[in-house]
Amino acid sequence: MKALVVYSGGMDSTVLLHLAIREYEEVEAISFDYGSKHNDREFREVEWNCQRLGVKYTRIKLPFEHFESNLLKGGGEIPEGHYADDTMKKTVVPFRNGIMLAFAAGFAESRDSTHLLLGNHFGDHAVYPDCRKSFIVPMCDAIQAGTYKQIKVESPFCDMSKTEICALGLEFSVDHNHSYSCYNGGETHCGRCSTCFERKEAFYECQMVDPTVYIDESSYLKLKTEYSDV
Amino acid sequence: MKALVVYSGGMDSTVLLHLAIREYEEVEAISFDYGSKHNDREFREVEWNCQRLGVKYTRIKLPFEHFESNLLKGGGEIPEGHYADDTMKKTVVPFRNGIMLAFAAGFAESRDSTHLLLGNHFGDHAVYPDCRKSFIVPMCDAIQAGTYKQIKVESPFCDMSKTEICALGLEFSVDHNHSYSCYNGGETHCGRCSTCFERKEAFYECQMVDPTVYIDESSYLKLKTEYSDV
Repeated sequence: MKALVVYSGGMDSTVLLHLAIREYEEVEAISFDYGSKHNDREFREVEWNCQRLGVKYTRIKLPFEHFESNLLKGGGEIPEGHYADDTMKKTVVPFRNGIMLAFAAGFAESRDSTHLLLGNHFGDHAVYPDCRKSFIVPMCDAIQAGTYKQIKVESPFCDMSKTEICALGLEFSVDHNHSYSCYNGGETHCGRCSTCFERKEAFYECQMVDPTVYIDESSYLKLKTEYSDV
Repeated sequence: MKALVVYSGGMDSTVLLHLAIREYEEVEAISFDYGSKHNDREFREVEWNCQRLGVKYTRIKLPFEHFESNLLKGGGEIPEGHYADDTMKKTVVPFRNGIMLAFAAGFAESRDSTHLLLGNHFGDHAVYPDCRKSFIVPMCDAIQAGTYKQIKVESPFCDMSKTEICALGLEFSVDHNHSYSCYNGGETHCGRCSTCFERKEAFYECQMVDPTVYIDESSYLKLKTEYSDV
């Protein structure tokens, strides 16, 4: 069995890549450059992990220049705080996951993969309609029906929290100095955006030392208090 | 209500565009350049029809260079004959319709369209898994669930034959000198590939004069006999 991993270089998909090489005979990775502020920075970690694990990877540039989102280059500022906040809507890239999944399905078929692996998880956010189960389930059915190989989409983390994924990464000796989550895309994690906040939360909750260097080193608990005051 | 029409410049979607401007308050069109041999030639007719009808259109280049198909530039020769033939498998572009639909859904959401219009029809071919109803139905569900506007995909031709679509075009005074269907992508329709064969068949069956200029002007009936001998 051959698996294609949709790999962003973030915490979840880095753990997923480590899981995949344990469970499949052959593994390839695909990364999407959709013009986000953090794509280039993420891709360095994609490269680092794939080289270390001996996984072939392909980077695909998707033409998102006609789309509007604060997440994209040229878009507005990345909001701070919880994902749950209404302001996070500004980081929605319309149907991004649908587009990436569809493209990955076609690529998987071209490369004789039978499985497509996704790092979506239980904590993925209601603000993004293309993270919801009501989207994922029919999308997987469409991919299976629409490919000759009846490609199966697997989401091994769909019932896990980010904290549990973080703990699983410990088992696999994942080096989180080489995963990248910040929406601002700087050299160093900002420590304040919603993805940085979640990263701090995951390490805090599974009682692991967080190896990440942040510009704002405020602890998870301090930020949590600060954001809930807003 | 605003509709986005997925518009290839072929016979079916040209009729669809004419239908859309009758049924929706506002209409935009999106065309995909996926590196096929006929994309550039088709696009001239997309432009011609959109300008004539006053429809805003956008051409999106999709990165299909990692995919293999005889339909794509650099791929093998376009086979002649019926779609039904096994050789037509060579013209499959993996999950092409899934990718185009997903991208169109994201674009529609960016442009405040509530409806996405597709020209797929009853005669679409089993050789293409991403033309089958078992693909289309869940894909539409995924798009509706995965977009804020709950975008609805409409396939007004899904229960019609190409012949019926051709007849409908007559009602709308569609000028089929300005629709283009040939897989070979030459200046003039080749008259022998499967799409040219189907084009001839549609005009023949609805007893319309076919205005298309073909390199091989053999009639539909002659070609039909020839191909069924193979």
